[in-house]
Amino acid sequence: MTVKINLPHDNSYEIFIEELKELYFDRKVVIVTNPTVSGFHLEYLKSKLNARELSVCTIPDGEEYKHMQTLESILEHCFEKRLDRKSLLVAFGGGVIGDMTGFAASIYQRGIDFVQIPTTLLSQVDASVGGKTGINNKFGKNLIGAFHQPIAVYIDPSMLKTLPKREFGAGVAEIVKMAVTFNKDFFEWLEQNDLNDEKNIQIAIAKSVQTKADVVSQDEKELGIRAALNYGHTFGHVIENETNYDTYLHGEAVGIGMCMANALAVKIGLMSQEEALRVKSLLEKYNIPTTYKIKDVEDFYEHFFLDKKSLDNKIKFILPVGIGNCKITNEVSKTDVIEILKGF
Amino acid sequence: MTVKINLPHDNSYEIFIEELKELYFDRKVVIVTNPTVSGFHLEYLKSKLNARELSVCTIPDGEEYKHMQTLESILEHCFEKRLDRKSLLVAFGGGVIGDMTGFAASIYQRGIDFVQIPTTLLSQVDASVGGKTGINNKFGKNLIGAFHQPIAVYIDPSMLKTLPKREFGAGVAEIVKMAVTFNKDFFEWLEQNDLNDEKNIQIAIAKSVQTKADVVSQDEKELGIRAALNYGHTFGHVIENETNYDTYLHGEAVGIGMCMANALAVKIGLMSQEEALRVKSLLEKYNIPTTYKIKDVEDFYEHFFLDKKSLDNKIKFILPVGIGNCKITNEVSKTDVIEILKGF
Repeated sequence: MTVKINLPHDNSYEIFIEELKELYFDRKVVIVTNPTVSGFHLEYLKSKLNARELSVCTIPDGEEYKHMQTLESILEHCFEKRLDRKSLLVAFGGGVIGDMTGFAASIYQRGIDFVQIPTTLLSQVDASVGGKTGINNKFGKNLIGAFHQPIAVYIDPSMLKTLPKREFGAGVAEIVKMAVTFNKDFFEWLEQNDLNDEKNIQIAIAKSVQTKADVVSQDEKELGIRAALNYGHTFGHVIENETNYDTYLHGEAVGIGMCMANALAVKIGLMSQEEALRVKSLLEKYNIPTTYKIKDVEDFYEHFFLDKKSLDNKIKFILPVGIGNCKITNEVSKTDVIEILKGF
Repeated sequence: MTVKINLPHDNSYEIFIEELKELYFDRKVVIVTNPTVSGFHLEYLKSKLNARELSVCTIPDGEEYKHMQTLESILEHCFEKRLDRKSLLVAFGGGVIGDMTGFAASIYQRGIDFVQIPTTLLSQVDASVGGKTGINNKFGKNLIGAFHQPIAVYIDPSMLKTLPKREFGAGVAEIVKMAVTFNKDFFEWLEQNDLNDEKNIQIAIAKSVQTKADVVSQDEKELGIRAALNYGHTFGHVIENETNYDTYLHGEAVGIGMCMANALAVKIGLMSQEEALRVKSLLEKYNIPTTYKIKDVEDFYEHFFLDKKSLDNKIKFILPVGIGNCKITNEVSKTDVIEILKGF
């Protein structure tokens, strides 16, 4: 199956959801990956990928390495291999690999091409689509980065066979996010179908990618509707930051974040208690955490202001409107937010 | 005088060459500058600039600080001041300040606006126009960066009064570059008029900016004709790199580089010996160096391959064709290059 992302300025590209086909690149190629992905799948990728000159840059595995130092090590590899402006980077791994490889590609000699071959469910359904790249720093997540679209994305669902259950759940969280914010039918389908089934997960990936593609095509630079994809993220980013990025997987923090956003939506009358519970049950079915013990509620609140989505010292929340619809608002009172936070 | 840079994708902007007017920004603004510029001109700028919230980020002065660490210190300042996606950076200084501020703006929260207020002749005529941003690393100059256009450029020639003579000469080198590559009449005008005269320098700035604007408007991302603006730079970058960026000013290295390019052009019959001498005399009139003692010619040659302009292991040279015209070629034999290098 192929999904097309339509973007202005010659930035359009295609996402292929199928067994990886033979790839030919008549240029220098660097595969950026980590030891885990490499151990499971590098030989498979190499058997499919033909390049004029190929090298592999292996970086440590984990969100805690998504920082400037690792980015510099990728760039250093590219310089040592004398990549030029026509060379290509291949992001081969999960969201961290994708975000950092894309960012490296965007600033290496002022920008070279890259492709995404996402290996985790989360990166297949979300991170590899849309051209957001970046790294974390002590102030928060993805605060330094660029919009840089890949020239193609190759999603091979067979790679999910080696994915740990927890990471699978983290990916499901992003699938649920897509459904709650944009597609009620898809949400009901998710309630009725088990994603551990091979056919079902393929359908869910395609539906998620198509949903995200539609949103990104409308608003590449997140000036409007695209922000809705951050449902669960305003809260989730604070949770990740407070726990030093080493306690929860990104998708897990988003899972908790969605429950917080839902609680807020229930509080101000955008969602029924019953709908919030349906989302919670669906998440729990895949062992996605839905609660988080907040140490200091005021401190948690203060953290919001470092989020990119907080313009003019107003926090921008993405709140569900029932199921299948959502609203972007910066008109939520601090009192309401504090109150729901205390409930966690 | 106003020069318009016409670019696709809403990236067009204007360059104002006149006494700085009152500026109003209803957003957070950070001025990035260095102690030298700050000492001479910061109070003047502050008297003209009105912002919702203003802070100043001072970084060390000099090309040797144009690296990742300084870039990170600019970003850190922005995070501490809680800049959001609507905030603005003001590059207030020479080419180093402009390149680094522009690069910081391009990656802070995936891209915010910036304006250029160039204070050196070099940055007024060249560096502030065209949207190239970046930093150096151990592999070479500007090897990490982005294309990020300013929203406006304000050139106030009165600021040149405090510029050291050597830096003035470095700026003249870039003016000569524009004339030799694109405009014979302008070159002859330069031979006949003294740029130390206040009226003349204003004319020369305007002519240079207009020339560069025309080229950049045709080829923003340097896929073709824009590369001609690198005349003198293929050699110049190697010279700067070999001397650790601390011996020559950028414009001085370009001055030597142009003489090397001219020698090569003479050797392969693109320029007469007499024309090469006219360029050399013009440079020497402003005390711009025109020779450089090469330690190891083979080593110097090997250095070319790290230059961004060297695609496919072929070195791309920008060579003058007479005066007022130029040619981009990667068909120069190593023997010819080595021979002219030995002459230096």
